[in-house]
Amino acid sequence: MNSIQKKKIVIVGGGFAGVNLANKLANHDAFDIVIVDKNNYNFFPPLLYQVATGYLETSNISYPFRKLFRGKHNIMFRMGELLEVMPDQKKLLLSTGEVDYDYLVFATGCITNYFGIRSVQQNAIPMKTIADALSMRNTLLERLERASRETDPVKRKKLLTIVIAGGGPTGVEISGMFAEMKKNIIAKDYPELKGSKGEIYLVDGVKSLLAPMSEKSQQYTHKMLTEMGVKIKLNSMVKDFTNDTVYFADGTTIEAKSLIWAAGVTAIVFNGLPDEVYGRGKRMIVDAFNKVIGLPDVYAIGDTCLQTTDPGFPQGHPQVAQVAIQQGQNLGKNLVNELAGKTLNPFRYHDKGSMAIIGRNKAVADLPKPKLFFSGFLAWVMWLFIHLLSLINYRNRLKTLYNWSTAYFTQDQALRFIVRPASKKA
Amino acid sequence: MNSIQKKKIVIVGGGFAGVNLANKLANHDAFDIVIVDKNNYNFFPPLLYQVATGYLETSNISYPFRKLFRGKHNIMFRMGELLEVMPDQKKLLLSTGEVDYDYLVFATGCITNYFGIRSVQQNAIPMKTIADALSMRNTLLERLERASRETDPVKRKKLLTIVIAGGGPTGVEISGMFAEMKKNIIAKDYPELKGSKGEIYLVDGVKSLLAPMSEKSQQYTHKMLTEMGVKIKLNSMVKDFTNDTVYFADGTTIEAKSLIWAAGVTAIVFNGLPDEVYGRGKRMIVDAFNKVIGLPDVYAIGDTCLQTTDPGFPQGHPQVAQVAIQQGQNLGKNLVNELAGKTLNPFRYHDKGSMAIIGRNKAVADLPKPKLFFSGFLAWVMWLFIHLLSLINYRNRLKTLYNWSTAYFTQDQALRFIVRPASKKA
Repeated sequence: MNSIQKKKIVIVGGGFAGVNLANKLANHDAFDIVIVDKNNYNFFPPLLYQVATGYLETSNISYPFRKLFRGKHNIMFRMGELLEVMPDQKKLLLSTGEVDYDYLVFATGCITNYFGIRSVQQNAIPMKTIADALSMRNTLLERLERASRETDPVKRKKLLTIVIAGGGPTGVEISGMFAEMKKNIIAKDYPELKGSKGEIYLVDGVKSLLAPMSEKSQQYTHKMLTEMGVKIKLNSMVKDFTNDTVYFADGTTIEAKSLIWAAGVTAIVFNGLPDEVYGRGKRMIVDAFNKVIGLPDVYAIGDTCLQTTDPGFPQGHPQVAQVAIQQGQNLGKNLVNELAGKTLNPFRYHDKGSMAIIGRNKAVADLPKPKLFFSGFLAWVMWLFIHLLSLINYRNRLKTLYNWSTAYFTQDQALRFIVRPASKKA
Repeated sequence: MNSIQKKKIVIVGGGFAGVNLANKLANHDAFDIVIVDKNNYNFFPPLLYQVATGYLETSNISYPFRKLFRGKHNIMFRMGELLEVMPDQKKLLLSTGEVDYDYLVFATGCITNYFGIRSVQQNAIPMKTIADALSMRNTLLERLERASRETDPVKRKKLLTIVIAGGGPTGVEISGMFAEMKKNIIAKDYPELKGSKGEIYLVDGVKSLLAPMSEKSQQYTHKMLTEMGVKIKLNSMVKDFTNDTVYFADGTTIEAKSLIWAAGVTAIVFNGLPDEVYGRGKRMIVDAFNKVIGLPDVYAIGDTCLQTTDPGFPQGHPQVAQVAIQQGQNLGKNLVNELAGKTLNPFRYHDKGSMAIIGRNKAVADLPKPKLFFSGFLAWVMWLFIHLLSLINYRNRLKTLYNWSTAYFTQDQALRFIVRPASKKA
């Protein structure tokens, strides 16, 4: 390879995987990097639910790409949605024009999976993007206002009942937060609702919450949420959501105006790629070096890829932030190594453990090596510390810490603005 | 009047006037207060332009009504838009149901006045509400992205040219901010735009900027903005805005994609009120005690009323925050006095002066008594101090101070997120 000839690497998607890859190659003269994203900002999905519930601001968990890559002279940002891939011409069609590439990297993550249930797609509230989170905040606040005006107790109960589908970290975190808000805020700020009924349900199709975590974590979480007043319904698949009623496969129902859908994700199928590249969950099948099988100079990293070459993970890796970060970094190193004629490193995932927050002073954490389980206040402090450290820059950290401290000491959240900016033609 | 019989006061509009009235009557056992507003939050309009330009967050200048009135047991919040007044039945029809009243207070402020120019209403960007500000932020950021992809220099120049109509404080503040952003941020974060053309125009139909302020303020502002690169076009009425072209009454044109409309406001005409209540600018004509003429038990305060009984202001008061605040407080005192059989105070406006910020270290301030003029750094510090003090609560102040300090020292703004939450049925 001629090191004077610059290589143009187009990374589609500026999440954990894409940003970590770009940063590895920053200011490296052999590469011109273009980051393509449909949003103009990177964001931190693990804290999305706090934006949705009004504890954090968008800016606490987001950072504009152009600011992020300022001073990294070989990284360009291009806003746009990927419409079609033309691998033969080494070209992409975006919603905002065409881009050619020498190397293409898919870091496109996942989108909400409604499992083909149309009524859920139409009526439920998703929880995957910043726009989703703000839409959820708006919608739930408006429904609270409606409930405060409603005089029919049956209708009022429906307006105040929230079903959260999906017992993963997002579902656990949201239901715990709602339980605390119900106790601390709604009672204070909605005197009209005094004595009203209304429940928080957390439902899942499998037999336990936080399925991939340890049994101890699952049991602790189940016990804490139940004590906080969350009704947990397991082994229950949602099959329909119409007329303010959630229908389950086993014939049971829950009457509720709001269904929050955190039940599953799917990778994205792009126009122009052969069917053979997609494996389970529409994830692109990659080799040990994250090359997409059968497509020269095309890579996939993070949630959107399926890699079964890692001895510890023969079924592929979990779709979590740490895998995306490590794959982005590993691919960056490999691209540099390849250029220097050095050997490439097959990807190996180093599991740093997993955790979930349940509420004030309550969390669970599983560490793999040594195998340890933490719960309660200690796990909660660990959770806060790690998430604060992971935020992408100093400004966000300080402001997030401020918002969290305020919320902790006052047991209150402040960001309760129903705002829907009108769309103007760009 | 029987003081045991509680009086129900419905205040429509939770801006400066409405909130100050409600606070005067808070926890007063003789009154039940209902604040009606179409938003669920109060906000601070003087800093709206900083939300629009990405220096402040919505939460820095807003506060939820329910939190604001927490612990004030006689104040209820009712979200809804006023659709019709039925003065004979002492009842209101809101978008969210009916409300009856003993006393009705209009504190409904003003809306953007497009002076009947349909193309401006359709294509220009207004600057009156929080949703307007976020829509402006989104739209201008998207247009910057578009410009960065545009290869045709003529189209690119259009995308980068912004015309601000209205030389009042809002127009001055926005154009000054754009001039600074152009210098400090766009050059750094949009390397694609290096060497591109694009102008910031501030236009007005009258012969000077900041028309109601002193001549010294006007001249200083004109000089500073010009030095900062803003092109000022006076005596020029916008008459049309189509095909990315602003047409003026004198036959001149400016090619620009973005027209920001801060050129005028109008009060609102409500269904159910006789035509005779409306005076100049659709403002409701009130007596010295803010009673709407000809309508028993109906009051109007703030921007929405026209009061010509104040000896210092025979043409009515300026539509500014201080008048609204003082009228709200005066009406509150009068309602209490009336109940106690005391004499009522006719409203007298105490002008505390006016100011406008032009940019970093640059502002103007006119004080009435003693008649003084300040400019430059001192006026700028005064402006910051007064606006910080005026923010409605401590949390907002601290966060605003933090955002301002960061922006000042880094000469940068951070809140550059294009977010458009989808609308879900409430």
